[in-house]
Amino acid sequence: MPVRLRVFSLNCWGIRYLSKHCAQRYAMIGDHLSKEQHDVVLLQEVWSEGDFLFLKKKLGGTHPFSYYFKSGFFGSGLAVFSRHTIHDAFLYKYSLNGYPYMVRILKNKILLKSAKCRNVDVYYNNFDIKAELVCQAHHGDWFGGKAVGKVLLKISGLMVHVFVTHLHAEYCREQDSYLPHRVVQAWELQNFIQHTCAGADVVILGGDLNMHPGDLGMRLLRSATGLQDCFTETGTFDGCEQGFTHVMDNPFTNKQGLIPLGGGIRIDYVFFKGSRKVDVRCESLSTTKGVVPPGQPFPYSDHEALSADLFLCPSEEGKGDSTQEKDNTAGKLSELVNIVTEARTEVKVGVHCAKRMRYTAARTVIMGLVLLILEIAIAAVPCLALGADQPFPKTTFYLLGALCFAVLLSTTLLYILYSMEVKALQETEDQMRLVVGSLHERLREFPKAVCKGHSQKKYDRQDPATLEPDQ
Amino acid sequence: MPVRLRVFSLNCWGIRYLSKHCAQRYAMIGDHLSKEQHDVVLLQEVWSEGDFLFLKKKLGGTHPFSYYFKSGFFGSGLAVFSRHTIHDAFLYKYSLNGYPYMVRILKNKILLKSAKCRNVDVYYNNFDIKAELVCQAHHGDWFGGKAVGKVLLKISGLMVHVFVTHLHAEYCREQDSYLPHRVVQAWELQNFIQHTCAGADVVILGGDLNMHPGDLGMRLLRSATGLQDCFTETGTFDGCEQGFTHVMDNPFTNKQGLIPLGGGIRIDYVFFKGSRKVDVRCESLSTTKGVVPPGQPFPYSDHEALSADLFLCPSEEGKGDSTQEKDNTAGKLSELVNIVTEARTEVKVGVHCAKRMRYTAARTVIMGLVLLILEIAIAAVPCLALGADQPFPKTTFYLLGALCFAVLLSTTLLYILYSMEVKALQETEDQMRLVVGSLHERLREFPKAVCKGHSQKKYDRQDPATLEPDQ
Repeated sequence: MPVRLRVFSLNCWGIRYLSKHCAQRYAMIGDHLSKEQHDVVLLQEVWSEGDFLFLKKKLGGTHPFSYYFKSGFFGSGLAVFSRHTIHDAFLYKYSLNGYPYMVRILKNKILLKSAKCRNVDVYYNNFDIKAELVCQAHHGDWFGGKAVGKVLLKISGLMVHVFVTHLHAEYCREQDSYLPHRVVQAWELQNFIQHTCAGADVVILGGDLNMHPGDLGMRLLRSATGLQDCFTETGTFDGCEQGFTHVMDNPFTNKQGLIPLGGGIRIDYVFFKGSRKVDVRCESLSTTKGVVPPGQPFPYSDHEALSADLFLCPSEEGKGDSTQEKDNTAGKLSELVNIVTEARTEVKVGVHCAKRMRYTAARTVIMGLVLLILEIAIAAVPCLALGADQPFPKTTFYLLGALCFAVLLSTTLLYILYSMEVKALQETEDQMRLVVGSLHERLREFPKAVCKGHSQKKYDRQDPATLEPDQ
Repeated sequence: MPVRLRVFSLNCWGIRYLSKHCAQRYAMIGDHLSKEQHDVVLLQEVWSEGDFLFLKKKLGGTHPFSYYFKSGFFGSGLAVFSRHTIHDAFLYKYSLNGYPYMVRILKNKILLKSAKCRNVDVYYNNFDIKAELVCQAHHGDWFGGKAVGKVLLKISGLMVHVFVTHLHAEYCREQDSYLPHRVVQAWELQNFIQHTCAGADVVILGGDLNMHPGDLGMRLLRSATGLQDCFTETGTFDGCEQGFTHVMDNPFTNKQGLIPLGGGIRIDYVFFKGSRKVDVRCESLSTTKGVVPPGQPFPYSDHEALSADLFLCPSEEGKGDSTQEKDNTAGKLSELVNIVTEARTEVKVGVHCAKRMRYTAARTVIMGLVLLILEIAIAAVPCLALGADQPFPKTTFYLLGALCFAVLLSTTLLYILYSMEVKALQETEDQMRLVVGSLHERLREFPKAVCKGHSQKKYDRQDPATLEPDQ
């Protein structure tokens, strides 16, 4: 002690055969990491295990310890490289992560091609078509098995808990049908961190959270865990304007999608938190700047890479307690109550939508079943009354039968899917209700005068039913 | 302090319309719990939320705090009732939990009926048919979304972390195709407990683990977490012989299945663990005894209920440290290494099987695709060469087309399913490899003489490749 810890985070955009110059970019990333020798490297969207193994081989000399988290169909895409021994790993797979039928790569390509053929500059002339096209992007998240991975490092006798994650993408900010899923993921992320880092001296979280700094999920995460954002806490910063990590200057970026968002967004983060034993501060943060690095043919990814220098030193005697006290002030608690209540409302909307979809699926299942029975009944008539004519041609009969069966099968699967979605959303809502109740109880312990300014006014404006712990 | 804590655990066997006398049994359970007033009640297989709400209403006076964990299609079936405030809840859904296509309720019933028609006393006369029938039981686990739920209680200023779980059933002990799944669940359970109870003063785990006391998963759980089994640690015991929780005397039990297992099995447990701050001991444990309770028409469930009286008192000064030291002895570590290595071998077998199934599914997908293309090509010939005769009848054409399509769809889904299984198993194996490596490192810190007796001999017998940390 004191210890300096250099943390690197990058969404590698590593979809083999679909992401541009995938293999070359991995070689570049490997070279960069070997040169820079960060203590901890957190990578996302490393979809292929082959690419992880390539990096592992390349970084064998500088980062002898590594871990690749596997889940879902393609994997979680999360990888950690470390200069310090990894003692343990744990993975928490998010309950919700989009829908398996939302793979729209082809549809998107066809739409784009047809727009090009018609020589329509869709992006600048027609916002609706643009929105449609941007929203029809690759929604393959379900297959990715999105998760939060945790590795345990011991650095100079300190227990450092490192988390890496990648949340569901936001394909369309105006009509974000995945918002409840992302809120659930943010809730589960903060819950996982809070429940698993009780014994930690230092907590680090890095990854592509697919949320803007002011988004509900981000406020929830920061407020609930007390994690500090390197960008806002850093001593010095060198990178894109406003800390953007997805920028117009990057040649891989879909520029049109970023225009309405002010030319860039900040969706990749490195967070940190100390403890009673250790104070952590971010001395400097740097990001790549979208432009092609000198001597390279293209950037490392369509996202910008973050590199944070953390400084760990023993906590000053007694200071820990006062920080703890400060953390527990009524103001912070009441802010958290408001955020959780807002998130709960969002999840409730999700429950409502999922229930509606489940209902539609159930109705279609019944419809398919009735049609199938009807068809069989009609077909059975000539068999039972021998000699009667066949009521409709065989071709139509088989086609209709196949159609009914296909409808029945697909809607049954959809019914199962939506039922699971409803359950996962309700579980999150229940947890939120419990936490709001518990926070209210803690708030009641504060003198009324303290609470009044922070919370009472806000509570008055809300529906009391949604706040009441319903134990 | 000191505090007495009464914990109750029961698998309620609450499958509406399928479990016998479901509603009446819930009423009986409610009455029993209201009368006994345990501090914490851990229920499993409460599959219907309606039944949970019924109990919640009934126990409103005695157990004002409750939580119902929701996941999967039917839910997790886990419920907690408490006399103390529940401050927080968290759910971890196991990565693996059987297969969705293994619902064999009907098949089982048909087989049983046909056996009865033929007047064959299958159970006593023919072991093979018996095994077949027992193994064809209700494998609906996948839909249940099996998980471990955690609630946080504060009792007399102590942080009590309470876990409730229900693992995948063992349908056939001789040919247990779900063993790797249950080992993965046991691994994830111990991982979840270890990672989330760092700040706990007291840890309690209750539930139907579907494992016998000496089973691999049980050894893994006990050895890794240090949890103590109420049955082996209790001062006084009143219950079935050998602590069985699934016995022949219970009128709901499938007696034939238990005969080869010695007339009973112990698969439901209550575990506990203290901390440096608190010593916990189990003063008494009692179970129901299978027979119908006095004044009741039938037992509470097909499982026996456990009721444990725990005694919490402040840990003696300094004793905590020495206990800690004892826990960390080379003997315990090397025992854990052996257990994890054994579990890893089991998981490897699972990976091998899942890969084989995935390969078969992939081959069938290709076969279905080739058949479909072939059929379309044959059908296209007369269309292209006008006037040529239709090569085969339309009925056959449509039937074959539908068959190809069905094969294609179902095997694609199976391919996705097996790929996800492979990933989940590999993830567990990787985590185990990491832990074995880390344990070896800790073992190396002990003097060689200490290690030698415990571990060296055992290691020598094993394949060094499986023990070597492969970072």
